[in-house]
Amino acid sequence: MQTFLSSQNIVELEKRYRANLINSITGFKNANLIGTIDEENRTNLAVFNSVFHLGANPALIGFIVRPDSVERHTLENIISTHHYTINHVNKIIYKKAHQTAARYPRDVSEFRATRLTEEYKNNFKAPYVAQSHIQIGVQFKQKIDIELNGTILVIGEITQLYFPSNCIFTDGFLDIEKAETIACTGLDSYHTTTRISRLSYAKPDTEPEELKLNYLE
Amino acid sequence: MQTFLSSQNIVELEKRYRANLINSITGFKNANLIGTIDEENRTNLAVFNSVFHLGANPALIGFIVRPDSVERHTLENIISTHHYTINHVNKIIYKKAHQTAARYPRDVSEFRATRLTEEYKNNFKAPYVAQSHIQIGVQFKQKIDIELNGTILVIGEITQLYFPSNCIFTDGFLDIEKAETIACTGLDSYHTTTRISRLSYAKPDTEPEELKLNYLE
Repeated sequence: MQTFLSSQNIVELEKRYRANLINSITGFKNANLIGTIDEENRTNLAVFNSVFHLGANPALIGFIVRPDSVERHTLENIISTHHYTINHVNKIIYKKAHQTAARYPRDVSEFRATRLTEEYKNNFKAPYVAQSHIQIGVQFKQKIDIELNGTILVIGEITQLYFPSNCIFTDGFLDIEKAETIACTGLDSYHTTTRISRLSYAKPDTEPEELKLNYLE
Repeated sequence: MQTFLSSQNIVELEKRYRANLINSITGFKNANLIGTIDEENRTNLAVFNSVFHLGANPALIGFIVRPDSVERHTLENIISTHHYTINHVNKIIYKKAHQTAARYPRDVSEFRATRLTEEYKNNFKAPYVAQSHIQIGVQFKQKIDIELNGTILVIGEITQLYFPSNCIFTDGFLDIEKAETIACTGLDSYHTTTRISRLSYAKPDTEPEELKLNYLE
């Protein structure tokens, strides 16, 4: 049996029900912790599940900020200090990551509240999450206001990248599953994964085949 | 052991290696097939892994189009006919979905080339993918040019939604894992998932708990 909802049906859904449903249908996504610091050296950490790839050269990454949410501290810090970290959520820290979404006051760092550890390295101003296995240092490039609903697209360039040395393939593919990164659905559901296969580059007259590639080490 | 790459290291990577790496680090995402039709009723189908949630009320969804790619047919059709479908890739059709990325000429429909089935229903102009279990009908709202790298953000409003009736929870959460949707990493890796748990709404003074909720039916 298939359920059909029209535009009108969607508008008439109870608010929280609609939020759960519409946040579910965009599918699997990554949970990422974004770490920032303000000009008075107060840190902030917030979970975002809207980080997406924008380009490889230059290496650009985007995410969406909602207008009236706790995520505002993140945006304010990025605009004032221009640097932030994106840290993959893994199966060890997913409950702490989820907890960073709580509405803590400005002077409470979510690092301290959730007992995640600030890590500073290679002269990067913003704090990494020490418990995260894949860490990305990003320099702010542009913010684009989306007038349709008041959300904001934040774009940055990747200037530092850290990952477990035993998770990279010979062709540059990074095995985030081996790095214990987990997938996320809806607003609150977390999932481990099992790779089916990698498929070869698609060409018109051949069927895709399973790639037989190895780790670099 | 952790590998560190600086901005300079990233720039110096071989092009294809960098594409694999930078497409991997944004984490898990959903593979979606976008179905369109042009004014001469020629259909097009292409896989995108950059679809993301923009808002629940109105229900807005975005995705990224790259400037010089086969995805251009999709964008041209959306601009001319204003309607498109977003269809979840599941474990039965993932090889066919991957194959839609091949550079077929304009007059070859990827539906026919990959033997996926066009489905038309409830007066929606664009074709759904019959084999997909979660299908979203979208009306084009806006395109935003991202000048940093020539990509384009396409935003639409959800006007039709179809999902398996036994996959929806009492609070509106849709169990896309039960609907056989799969997760994707990098440019070519596909994964099944296993839910760890859903977590309760985060509040400052309590720890998140596992949600005990049930299917609507």
